[in-house]
Amino acid sequence: MKCAILSIGTELLMGQILNTNSKYLSEELNNLGIGVYYHHTVGDNPKRLEALIKETFKNVDMIITTGGLGPTQDDLTKDIISKIFNREMIKDEYSYERIKGYFKRRKKAMSPNNIRQAYMPKDSIILENNYGTAPGFILEEKEKIIICLPGPPREMKNMFNDQVIKYIMDKEKNYIHSKTIRLFGIGESSLEENIMDLIRKQKNPTIATYAKEGEVSIRITSSSKDEEEAKYLVDNMIKNIYEKVGKYIYSTDNEELIDVVVKKLKEKSLTLSLAESCTGGMIGSKFTDIPGVSNYFDRSLVTYSNRAKEEELGVKKHILKEFGAVSRQTAESMVIGLKRKTKSDICLSVTGIAGPDGGTDEKPVGLVYISLLYGKIMVTRRFYFTGDRNKIRIYTMLSGLNMIKEVL
Amino acid sequence: MKCAILSIGTELLMGQILNTNSKYLSEELNNLGIGVYYHHTVGDNPKRLEALIKETFKNVDMIITTGGLGPTQDDLTKDIISKIFNREMIKDEYSYERIKGYFKRRKKAMSPNNIRQAYMPKDSIILENNYGTAPGFILEEKEKIIICLPGPPREMKNMFNDQVIKYIMDKEKNYIHSKTIRLFGIGESSLEENIMDLIRKQKNPTIATYAKEGEVSIRITSSSKDEEEAKYLVDNMIKNIYEKVGKYIYSTDNEELIDVVVKKLKEKSLTLSLAESCTGGMIGSKFTDIPGVSNYFDRSLVTYSNRAKEEELGVKKHILKEFGAVSRQTAESMVIGLKRKTKSDICLSVTGIAGPDGGTDEKPVGLVYISLLYGKIMVTRRFYFTGDRNKIRIYTMLSGLNMIKEVL
Repeated sequence: MKCAILSIGTELLMGQILNTNSKYLSEELNNLGIGVYYHHTVGDNPKRLEALIKETFKNVDMIITTGGLGPTQDDLTKDIISKIFNREMIKDEYSYERIKGYFKRRKKAMSPNNIRQAYMPKDSIILENNYGTAPGFILEEKEKIIICLPGPPREMKNMFNDQVIKYIMDKEKNYIHSKTIRLFGIGESSLEENIMDLIRKQKNPTIATYAKEGEVSIRITSSSKDEEEAKYLVDNMIKNIYEKVGKYIYSTDNEELIDVVVKKLKEKSLTLSLAESCTGGMIGSKFTDIPGVSNYFDRSLVTYSNRAKEEELGVKKHILKEFGAVSRQTAESMVIGLKRKTKSDICLSVTGIAGPDGGTDEKPVGLVYISLLYGKIMVTRRFYFTGDRNKIRIYTMLSGLNMIKEVL
Repeated sequence: MKCAILSIGTELLMGQILNTNSKYLSEELNNLGIGVYYHHTVGDNPKRLEALIKETFKNVDMIITTGGLGPTQDDLTKDIISKIFNREMIKDEYSYERIKGYFKRRKKAMSPNNIRQAYMPKDSIILENNYGTAPGFILEEKEKIIICLPGPPREMKNMFNDQVIKYIMDKEKNYIHSKTIRLFGIGESSLEENIMDLIRKQKNPTIATYAKEGEVSIRITSSSKDEEEAKYLVDNMIKNIYEKVGKYIYSTDNEELIDVVVKKLKEKSLTLSLAESCTGGMIGSKFTDIPGVSNYFDRSLVTYSNRAKEEELGVKKHILKEFGAVSRQTAESMVIGLKRKTKSDICLSVTGIAGPDGGTDEKPVGLVYISLLYGKIMVTRRFYFTGDRNKIRIYTMLSGLNMIKEVL
């Protein structure tokens, strides 16, 4: 099935908001085995919208629209589509009650515009909106399908995941199964080299690799008439990938590195403290992103200046002078001081040169030392990261998390 | 002039990357007074690209393409456009030398594909690429204009800013001047109410408001045949806006709050230390985003647990017990302990409930205390933020930065 995604909204054409819906839907549709051939965006303009839908249907079987369903947009999308498909608008009692309930719960008045949101093209499949007022809908006619979703990403995503995927799978008479493996410590191109034979042979399941700031992931998607077979195909492929790059895999459930680390801290009831220099609090901030982490995360001492390293962590002046703030000796001295102070089960220190200035031939920008202390284990690693200041800091953070993960 | 933006690349249709180029170009073009009527995205497919360009030119005068110029994409865009406009491809010696130089500097071999990048449609205006190998170009014919830019955002943006804006301004015989004001402490809707009469009257200059995570900004854009007049129109509008909402304005040069704070610390040669609880290092990380901040930023003590607050900052057990970790008393005790320890000129402490759990009727999620100590000034503020954990943490960070800005 050939598909196009049509985003409706003048604010997109003004550049006021980023179109994340098209990316999201494209990724999901590709995983369902639906080819996306076009993204189009048009403003809240009836004539141009009508012309674009008609033109687009010349090239594809299915259009998914987002936006133009809100109460202030005069139900633009619904009106135009009911016109194109020649359907009258009928009040949908179920949607009407839902919208009424939505306003009642929020103790707000319902405007005539909101009532209009309950009118839907005749014989459409109505999609409930569990996160807002505008219902979506699906219309089918003469081998053509149009699926209309609201614009706000949260409403759109939930409607798509909960209702549209099922519709498409039924339509295609196919069960789709998808899993995402996450890896750290291997680049995308070297990952692809390692699993090249699997990628070459791929057909069902399909394999797609993605890279994002130091982490790479592999999405494996199978399709089958039979649910069990779809799952088996994916699991079997994961086994094959494990054989090749297993040591880099930290999750087969699309978890982030931080989630895996915190899960392990919880499982083992361990406490953690940090001493951060070049990351400046970024690692602590990452841990405290996670609700309820306070039982495991004790503190982070962001010792940016040398004086702070001396005072907070007891790093000796002569060490800073002789070896420098960015050195194995300082990193180890930091982590020992941190342990002495906090008694946390796991202590981690980082010190490095994030740039763009401050690098020398001997100690270039991107040089980072990370030390970890856990029981009797003390590990110190030296890294040379490339990229801008932000990238070096993020790589440092991820490498620190990875070192914690490795000892747990 | 009516314009469409055409993004070329299968990776966009696969949902592998987010289309930030269309947003960027739309915002810039709107500021230049050019109306953007469509965004289209098509894959690396010659037939569909050709058909889409032809179809799009039925509705607009100008198309800006991004992507499809890279060495691995077989110069898809150039080939199709030279075909549509019926122009032969000619080797551009200047581009050739530049590409050769690019590889020489990087000590890399030049492939035949790279040589092809120097071939351009006859009589096109060539756009230099200062950040990559693929030059862009502009073709004009029969009142239609096509501007082809590379896909990587950094290459695209620099080419657009340095060369395309000038081309468009010459074309429009107009000088465009634009400035962005940044505000903190006022919501977008209340800002709009306050400057409603200015927005209503707007024509030249135009006024657009934008909101992003707690900060709002106003972009003022004028156009005139005369450069001086364009500048005067903007400056005069800024004066009018100052009269209405001046107390919320922290920059008329589109600077971020953190940049304004660090600039002031530098000007006054002051040092800063932080004691963070609910932000968990986020504020320290924000400061250390900025290169060379180490002369002003001493340390951040991320005291997430009560024990850390006691040990690091000398917060008394009975204060934590009697008033709780999230209280005026704890915040003030934290900042006093921080000052005693660090002697930094400015000390700031934050403690709050970021949620989603941990709130009570008396102390709901979103309750945050921030204390600041500067010389003899001690300020403590209580906030009630709404939103999810991330939003509450970001608002806390921004409010802390704003409190520092206010005393400087």
